[in-house]
Amino acid sequence: MITLHPLQGIPPVEPGDDLAALVLESARRSGIELCNGALVICQKVVSKSEGRVVKLDTIEPSAEARQIAREDDKDPRVVEVVLGEATRIVRRGHGVMICETRHGFVCANAGVDLSNATHPDSAVLLPIDPDASARGLHNALLAAGTGPLAVVISDTFGRPWREGLVDVALGSAGIRPIEDLRGGVDLVGRELEVTATATCDQLAAAAGLLMPKDSGVPAVWVDGVAVQGDGSVRETLRDSSTDLFR
Amino acid sequence: MITLHPLQGIPPVEPGDDLAALVLESARRSGIELCNGALVICQKVVSKSEGRVVKLDTIEPSAEARQIAREDDKDPRVVEVVLGEATRIVRRGHGVMICETRHGFVCANAGVDLSNATHPDSAVLLPIDPDASARGLHNALLAAGTGPLAVVISDTFGRPWREGLVDVALGSAGIRPIEDLRGGVDLVGRELEVTATATCDQLAAAAGLLMPKDSGVPAVWVDGVAVQGDGSVRETLRDSSTDLFR
Repeated sequence: MITLHPLQGIPPVEPGDDLAALVLESARRSGIELCNGALVICQKVVSKSEGRVVKLDTIEPSAEARQIAREDDKDPRVVEVVLGEATRIVRRGHGVMICETRHGFVCANAGVDLSNATHPDSAVLLPIDPDASARGLHNALLAAGTGPLAVVISDTFGRPWREGLVDVALGSAGIRPIEDLRGGVDLVGRELEVTATATCDQLAAAAGLLMPKDSGVPAVWVDGVAVQGDGSVRETLRDSSTDLFR
Repeated sequence: MITLHPLQGIPPVEPGDDLAALVLESARRSGIELCNGALVICQKVVSKSEGRVVKLDTIEPSAEARQIAREDDKDPRVVEVVLGEATRIVRRGHGVMICETRHGFVCANAGVDLSNATHPDSAVLLPIDPDASARGLHNALLAAGTGPLAVVISDTFGRPWREGLVDVALGSAGIRPIEDLRGGVDLVGRELEVTATATCDQLAAAAGLLMPKDSGVPAVWVDGVAVQGDGSVRETLRDSSTDLFR
């Protein structure tokens, strides 16, 4: 049995805020024991706490950004911020820019987001190193006396072929992001060939059920998850040489 | 709060089996009340109950299937079955065939799967109409006296750009597959532009945490999900005219 608890009452996060303290306080108020489970926390509050917020009136758009903005009817300053976060544009069309980020994520607008930015004329960027962010939060929670736990930093991404967003993992600590069953056998004894489960992505999606963008819930405690091994979400990123869609 | 309960003790499913009865019996044994939540059931047992199983020794591979099998080191009979389920091959490379199915799903091998087939020399196909399968199970459960509930049929799909499989929804009944927040506002009053959550896909992924392929758990009861509206997973399929990756 797995139980998902929304962590409620976490106030708007500002640069420098102590996320571990905010999480612990919310859990304490709700009577949730942080032990043997996974904390899924949305990228936006992590980014804000790390100061990954850009005021748009400080941005001077390049010629390329102005060109794209004209063609796609966007704010050229936002396009400039997106280009700064992207290592390449994988596809552009229908007003959407699918970019590869410096981390290797492929997503719309290189993860740059205007919604729920604390200040109306600002944009929130992805954390510089979401695995390191997860590791820092993981260490801080353990140091505060929690039981064994995993930390997953999530964001909502669109997907090819399917409408609607799902949450995926950007960073993790205290858990293996991929559970590899290859080499095992199925229930009738046939060898499982390509069965590696993206556990942290499934955790992110599960937590997403309780974190719609208008809910004010920035984190979910997933109780009852086997916390085994350790690893980086970078393991989840497919090498572009074996990727059929880049 | 959302709770995920594995439905245990469901025996291997054969063509013609009554899935609703098997689900109800498993829930009863575990003391789970099927009310105000979602039943996520994996495609494989639905397909088997519907007889969507092909014995490979009945398959005569075409020249095209033999050619692909030679190039990709596959069983030509399996390739023939895949081609029969696909309306087109979206990409082929690294020994993988990414196909569009007759339903409009884009996935490896058009959803044809050899693992956990009841008979070693057989392949399991996707249900002909997974929404209809979900509807049939939904109706049967309601008729048996359950409370309001949703039914989601799930399968594990790979994804571009990321390693590892996640569960997605193939069919649904009694729930809106996409929760559209567009037109709403975020927490600072900014209009939400592209925030439609793929609720049924998130439910499938959540349930996937309890359904690894070697677990023998073919269904999960997701308790505490708001069961609102109704719709078809076909709504989740992006029109190929607005898809940047087809």
